[in-house]
Order: sequence, then structure tokens, then C-alpha cells
Amino acid sequence: MSDIDLAFDEQERLPAVAQDADSGEVLMLAYVTSEAVERTRETGFAHYYSRSREELWKKGGSSGHVQEIAEIRVDCDGDALLYLVDQTGGACHTGYESCFHRTVDGETVGERVFDPDEVYE
Amino acid sequence: MSDIDLAFDEQERLPAVAQDADSGEVLMLAYVTSEAVERTRETGFAHYYSRSREELWKKGGSSGHVQEIAEIRVDCDGDALLYLVDQTGGACHTGYESCFHRTVDGETVGERVFDPDEVYE
Repeated sequence: MSDIDLAFDEQERLPAVAQDADSGEVLMLAYVTSEAVERTRETGFAHYYSRSREELWKKGGSSGHVQEIAEIRVDCDGDALLYLVDQTGGACHTGYESCFHRTVDGETVGERVFDPDEVYE
Repeated sequence: MSDIDLAFDEQERLPAVAQDADSGEVLMLAYVTSEAVERTRETGFAHYYSRSREELWKKGGSSGHVQEIAEIRVDCDGDALLYLVDQTGGACHTGYESCFHRTVDGETVGERVFDPDEVYE
């Protein structure tokens, strides 16, 4: 049993999906670099790479809504990750538990778990 | 309630995560174009865009392991989709229920549900 080679894309990134380890809720999708994966494995907390800010990013670093890693899975092609996490608070900056809180038709289906005005000052 | 605008990337694609609507298992991650999303909504079966074959692709078109759509969700930024699906057979071409059947350490954690030699001839 040894580490699986990850197939980063030409921009040295790949997508990572975060799923709540208890509820099974898919919480968010973001991107990681090899550095973000290393930091995630070293610290036990989910790290991503922000494409807009162009920097490594610890989820919950400012909000406190961290994701403690239960397990990291990799897909058959090695080009996508699944973070199984224990989510503190909510994953979405809008206050919802999951970033996937709307259907493509525009219906809100997710649960709001915090008030972003109180978390992001 | 109206359709949400999707934020396709510069290559006119975005990632779509398929999740089993019953078990909550995350099955796979693939990419979609606007045409793939339209076809998915029209037919009620998951379609993706194959980056290697550069073509629209119906999941299960050759294996019969189709994904019937229960709901399509979109994330807060509109740049990722979540397909909630009823998966026939297994999602992974290797015979596993999920493409995410290994941890990043190389341990197999998923369940094998079919023999690929019998499905892909």
C-alpha cells in the first residue's frame, strides 16, 4: 500500500470535492495543488488553492468553519479527490451547510446554518 | 424561480459530481458543457463531455450503467454541478460502485459491483 500518484492538470491543479463524513452531504467543490494536498495531510484540515486569489487557502481560516479530515479518497484516474470531512459550522460563505443548496432550476433546497453577516465582518 | 446561470470556464466546461441519490455515495467527477447539461435535463439521464475523446458522452451508453437523474444542483458560484442520480450497476469502469474507491494512501475502501471483463467487450 503506497501513495497514489495524482494526475494534476496543466495548471498543476485538480478538483477536490468535500463531503460530510457523517451526513453524506456534498458540501463544496474547490481546487487543490500538490502543496494544498500535502498541507491537508500534514495538518488534518482541508486546504485548497484559490484560483482567484492565487494562493493556498485553509478552509475556515477566517470564518472558523474548518473541515477536519476523516479520509482522503482519489478517483480511478487520479485526477479528482474526495475529502471526507467533519464540517464545523457551514461550508458555504452564504450561510448554507452546502454550497450546493440550489437546484439548477433556482429552487433552494439546502439548509441555512449560520448568518454570514455575523461570521464575516 | 428561474434557471441559474452557469459559469463555464474558458474552455466552456465545468465539473459535475455524481452522487447516488439513495446511498449518498459520491460516484464520480466528470466535466460538462452546456450541451451536456441540456441533454441531461432533456433526457433525464446523465451526460458529460469527454475531454480525451472531445465529445458529448452519455454515461452508461456502452456499459448500460446509466445514471437516471433525480435532481441537478448548482453551487453558490455557479461553476460546479451536483447530479443526484439513481445509478444502474456501478459508476466506475473498473467495476467499483464509485470511482472514489481508494484512499490517497492506496487502500481500497469501495465495493466492487461488477466484472468489467463481462461488461466491456
